[in-house]
This record gives sequence, structure tokens and C-alpha cells, in this order.
Amino acid sequence: MKVTVSRKAHFNAAHRLFRKDWSFEKNDEIFGKCNNPNFHGHNYELIVSVEGDIDKETGYVIDMKILKDIIKTEIEDAFDHKNLNIEVPEFKDLNPTAENIAVVIYNKIKPLIDVSLDLVITLYETPRNFVTYSGN
Amino acid sequence: MKVTVSRKAHFNAAHRLFRKDWSFEKNDEIFGKCNNPNFHGHNYELIVSVEGDIDKETGYVIDMKILKDIIKTEIEDAFDHKNLNIEVPEFKDLNPTAENIAVVIYNKIKPLIDVSLDLVITLYETPRNFVTYSGN
Amino acid sequence: MKVTVSRKAHFNAAHRLFRKDWSFEKNDEIFGKCNNPNFHGHNYELIVSVEGDIDKETGYVIDMKILKDIIKTEIEDAFDHKNLNIEVPEFKDLNPTAENIAVVIYNKIKPLIDVSLDLVITLYETPRNFVTYSGN
Amino acid sequence: MKVTVSRKAHFNAAHRLFRKDWSFEKNDEIFGKCNNPNFHGHNYELIVSVEGDIDKETGYVIDMKILKDIIKTEIEDAFDHKNLNIEVPEFKDLNPTAENIAVVIYNKIKPLIDVSLDLVITLYETPRNFVTYSGN
Amino acid sequence: MKVTVSRKAHFNAAHRLFRKDWSFEKNDEIFGKCNNPNFHGHNYELIVSVEGDIDKETGYVIDMKILKDIIKTEIEDAFDHKNLNIEVPEFKDLNPTAENIAVVIYNKIKPLIDVSLDLVITLYETPRNFVTYSGN
Amino acid sequence: MKVTVSRKAHFNAAHRLFRKDWSFEKNDEIFGKCNNPNFHGHNYELIVSVEGDIDKETGYVIDMKILKDIIKTEIEDAFDHKNLNIEVPEFKDLNPTAENIAVVIYNKIKPLIDVSLDLVITLYETPRNFVTYSGN
Repeated sequence: MKVTVSRKAHFNAAHRLFRKDWSFEKNDEIFGKCNNPNFHGHNYELIVSVEGDIDKETGYVIDMKILKDIIKTEIEDAFDHKNLNIEVPEFKDLNPTAENIAVVIYNKIKPLIDVSLDLVITLYETPRNFVTYSGN
Repeated sequence: MKVTVSRKAHFNAAHRLFRKDWSFEKNDEIFGKCNNPNFHGHNYELIVSVEGDIDKETGYVIDMKILKDIIKTEIEDAFDHKNLNIEVPEFKDLNPTAENIAVVIYNKIKPLIDVSLDLVITLYETPRNFVTYSGN
Repeated sequence: MKVTVSRKAHFNAAHRLFRKDWSFEKNDEIFGKCNNPNFHGHNYELIVSVEGDIDKETGYVIDMKILKDIIKTEIEDAFDHKNLNIEVPEFKDLNPTAENIAVVIYNKIKPLIDVSLDLVITLYETPRNFVTYSGN
Repeated sequence: MKVTVSRKAHFNAAHRLFRKDWSFEKNDEIFGKCNNPNFHGHNYELIVSVEGDIDKETGYVIDMKILKDIIKTEIEDAFDHKNLNIEVPEFKDLNPTAENIAVVIYNKIKPLIDVSLDLVITLYETPRNFVTYSGN
Repeated sequence: MKVTVSRKAHFNAAHRLFRKDWSFEKNDEIFGKCNNPNFHGHNYELIVSVEGDIDKETGYVIDMKILKDIIKTEIEDAFDHKNLNIEVPEFKDLNPTAENIAVVIYNKIKPLIDVSLDLVITLYETPRNFVTYSGN
Repeated sequence: MKVTVSRKAHFNAAHRLFRKDWSFEKNDEIFGKCNNPNFHGHNYELIVSVEGDIDKETGYVIDMKILKDIIKTEIEDAFDHKNLNIEVPEFKDLNPTAENIAVVIYNKIKPLIDVSLDLVITLYETPRNFVTYSGN
């Protein structure tokens, strides 16, 4: 019996959408006000979903406390109250769009959970915009 | 890397569930108080989800501003503060159930996005009732 | 010890903002697309708040079941899936703005609760627009 | 045209995570404060989703009133304001984790809907933790 | 310049509404299914609001980190995953209605904040029922 | 009959809590990770509430379209996708705490509405932290 368990978390961060290898004009054309060189920011709301078989012993797919600790260490401590472009190494050469942030979060968490478990990352950049990534 | 990006929007509309080719009694039996001939209404909350590969240049699946504009022109301008049965041509001979409204929204948006992108429409008729349609 | 207890409820209705004694042009100028003669509609979300002393015997300000029943009988049964302009007598000669609906709800519920209790009506016309009325 | 229709419901219940065949120490190690012998509790928020073809006659996948009644009879009446471990027979020998509760809800509702319809159960144990089960 | 700052928190607990000095029949008549002797439970969502002058030095009414710590120590650690009737001393002889829980929370937090600050407690017993207490 | 009408809006911005006239050490001690020199950010959710008498002609306290336009011009256009410390003149010498932002918003909107109307600003810095200012 496969069940998906999901845990919500959140972090607040500044970012700017731009590519170093593009001119300011091109960045401005593509990213508009998201390319503000002084940065803007978001309260990112994160849902980490793990799918797998229910463990018959415990009735758990994964112990939520373990999942919560992984999210705390890997994501909240690394991203919260940070400037994603400047302070998070994964975005040194990667544009921190919501899409790319979701992929980075997936890649940080996936190696830390059992290989039999599927992972889906849902990331709300605002209450009106969100992305989902499942590793495919 | 396939990512789904989602954008929320909303419109307020009046509607009535009924079929012109049925008697009032039959409409009443099937649709109950939703068949009120004087109409009732909803704040429809809409989530438009687009799945596709991340563009390596921009880090976007689709530019949200473009998606937002499509939703504005095709759905909000056409449905908001309207009587769906009387003023929206798609429902002239189609019962405006949440299911049918979701299909109509899908059919209006799909031709306007790149053919490589998948589309999913989620429509909340109330905060407690919602439908999802992905074109299959 | 004065405590305010609040209960949420909801109803879906059609309405139109206009005054019979104004021309269509004047209604249109003042009420814009809310003056659509074919009506539009909303999911109204209602919060009924009652303030009073905690009853030392029960620990209640008011029994929520009683409050829930009053809201059901007076508001939900009377307004839900209705056309406010046509089918709700209070709006026969009263423009059903959110402000006026809140006042009507207040006036219907106030006589049914103990005279020592204060009443506040909060009415969400949409998730983004709401009004509050406390009888003053 | 396959559409998924979803209906929200809720119930409040007490529970305790533990296995009768384990020592208190082992239960404590695995379930931590969820193993409190005096119980704790939750407002469970439930989303029942049914996927199937739109009925061309009615425009419905399933009549929401029928689905609402099934949820009321099978789930709300059986679980609401109950102690899941003591008063709900399905959990007599089954640990009431969110995962297991979702499976039990699935198994109670599935036989009551048309065999052509797919069912997905989403259960929020808290606003921050939820599970999804689709019968596979 | 008086500003109110509010912080949300939450705890999950079991409880039962009843008075030891009443018969089971009387408890049942007044408290209905909330009098279940096996308990039921809730995810309580708490909003602690503190009103006072903005400190001109810091721009704060109160440092949210300090308020967060007070809520953690006084309320979350004391109430979360507990049976309110059995394990929280304040309810040994006090019926744990939402009203009374709000008063208890107020009385625990008030002495720990500066005497110049006003305190308001808002407690959601469910997403549909909530109470507010401001110490008067 | 006094009614309060409220309108929600939102803006995304970067900020940093610090005082130019304090040492980095003192800023760090008081503002902790909010003092990150590289900035962090939020999705600010704003509720603008206006209290006044219902206009007997229109049934409005204030035309929501007018209020929406004031919020758009004065707040969203000025703050959205901006760095509050660097790009918003009001915070040149004022620490952009939630409290101070609410006061600035109040002071920008108050002169633009009728002198008979009361104004309350509620500002969510995150879904868990918010402030309220009513001009006193």
C-alpha cells in the first residue's frame, strides 16, 4: 500500500533573477522587475512529499520527525534569512527561479531518504505562484 | 527536468445548473437548489498548472507573466462578473457544472501555450468543492 | 471575564448592485460590472462573533450548537443558493452591497441571542474583500 | 473526458500511536510524544477525490450531494468526536497513524462508489502534515 | 504610536468537556458529544497579540523572538500532545472549553511581558470555531 | 451605521533590519539573522480597513475600486519587488520592521481618504507574524 506523506516548512529569502553572462538589458527584458539589482524577496512555503509503502510495523511511510529534521538541516538552515544569489552556493551560477530552487531542494533531500521512496517538492514562491518537481 | 508551474487566479460569476431539454421537474430532481431559475453564484478560484522542461537559458518552464496574461484575457475577462449561462457562449448549450467549466477553461488555454507543455486545470467552485482536469 | 466566540458559516448567492430609482447609466457609472443585469455571484464566508461573560457553570459564552443552529435557520436557509435581489425580501428595496448584507445579517441574529451579548458580523464577499459590522 | 472532483470534510478525534504487542519503552522510542497514554488529538481535514468520466447527461462525474452523504455517514458519523483507538473498530488492532487512517477511509468509501471511478484520499492530520492514498 | 504585533503558534491536544460535580446525564445534556469519556481532540491554532508603543530605538513593539520563546515554553511545551483534562494542572477543576483555555493562556503569558503591553489571545479550536480574550 | 470594509493586497520585497548609527555587533545582537547585510525578503500580505458610515445612496462605505486603486498606486507600485532599505525613501533613516512599515503605509493612505473615515493597517510579514496599526 503506497501512501504519500507530506510535510510543510518555510523560509524567507532575498533573490534576484538574472544571468551573469547576459547584459543588463537582456536580463531586464526577460526577467523584468525580478531583475532588480537590489534584490526582492519571498516567504517561500515548501511541501516535501515522500511516497512509499506503509511500514507494517510502525504504520509510517517515513517518521515525520526524521523528515522534519532533514528539512530543517538541509533547507531551512541553509536558505532561511539568506540572499539566495550571494549566500547559497548552489545558486552561484544558477538563476534562482522557483523552478531551479525546487530542483536544488530535491537534489539535497533525495540522497538522505531511503532509495525506495519517491520524492516530490512543491514550492510556493508566493501564495499565488508555485512549482512542483518530482525528479523526472 | 520536468517541472510543473502553477498560477492562481479568480473570477466571480452567477450560474444555474439545468438542461433546456429537460422538464423543470427533472432538472429539479437532478440539480436541486443549483437549478434555481434566478441563479446563484460563486467566487471561482482557478489554478492553471503547466508542466514542461525547464528552459536552461531562463530557468523558467514558462514565463509566469505570459501565463498570467493568457489567464487574464481568456478567462478573467470572459467570465468575471458574468452570468455563465447567459453571457458566456461556451455554456449556451452546455451545463455549467464545475466539471464542464474546467474543460472549457482547458480548451481555451491549451492552444495558446507551446505544444510541448502539459496543462492541468484545477477549479474551486467553493472552498470545499473543486475539480481537476488534465485533458485526458 | 468577557470572551468573544466566533463561528464560521457560508452561503453561495447571486446578486446585482443597482438602485431601481436610478437610470441604468447612473447605476453603471457607480457600480460598474457589479451592475450586470444578468447578475453575478459569490461564495460568501460569514463569521458570527458573540461577546459576553463566560458562564461559570458551563465555561461557555454561548453554546456553539445553538449559535450554529441560529445561523443555519436565519442565514444559510434564507440566503444559500438564492438570488439576493429577487428572493430575499430584505433586499427588495435595499442594494445588496456587502455592507448592507452584513447589517441585514446582524439585524436577523441580534434579537435571537441574549440581550447581554454583543454581536459582530464579518462577511467575506471574496477572499480579498470583507466587511465588519458591530451594530453601532 | 476524465475529471477529478474533490470534496472537503473534517472530523475531530483523539488518538494515540502505539502497538499493544510492543513494550512501553519501544512504543516511546518509536512514537515519542504521540505515544502519550492519555491520548492527544487532531482536527482532521479530509479531501475525498473521485476521478471518472463526465456524465454527458448531467455534466457531473458524481453528484456531490451523494458523495457528501457517503462521507457524512461513513466517516464523519463514525470518527467525529471519537477516540480512534478505543471507539473505532478498524483501529482495534491497527495503529491510527495518518497513513493507516487514510487507508481505512479509502476502504470504507471505495465499495460505495461506482466501480468505474478512481478514489484518492487526502488527510491532513495538522495544517502542516498530510497524507495521500489512492489504493495502490 | 501603538501597534499590535501578533504571532501564530499551535498545539495538538485531547480534551473532554464535563464537570466532575455534575451527573453524566447532565454533562451529556449540556456538552453532547464533547462529553465523550474517551476524549476527542483538536489542533489548536493560537494567535498571541501584544499591543504597545513602538520602541524608537529598535522599531519593535516586542522582539518576536522573545514572544516566540515565551509561547514555546509556557504554552506549546505545556499543552502540546497532552490530555488537557488529565495532564494540564490548570484544568484539574476547570472545564477546558475554548473560552477557558484562552483565559488560562492569557494568565500564563501576561505576567511575562512588560506591564505596559496589552495582550489579546485568539484561539482556534477548529478552523470554524475560535475565541478571543483580552483580559477584561 | 458604521461598517468596516477591508481589502487585501500584497507585495514582495527585500529588507534588512539594522540601524546605521549602531555597530554591526549591536545590530547583530538586537536583530540577529534579520540583520543579514545581504538582505532577506518577504511576501507581505496587506489588509487595508476603512471604517465609516454606510452611504445611504450607494450602500458603500467607500468604493472598493477607489480603495484598490489607492493601494495600487501608493503601496504596490512603490514597494513591490523593491529593496525597502535602498529603494523606498521612507526607510532611508527608518528601520523597516513590520511595525514601521505598517505606520508608513498608514501615513501614505490616510490623507487620500475622506477625513471622516478611520483607517486600520494589518500587515503580514509572514503567514505567522503580523502587525496592526490604527493611527493612535
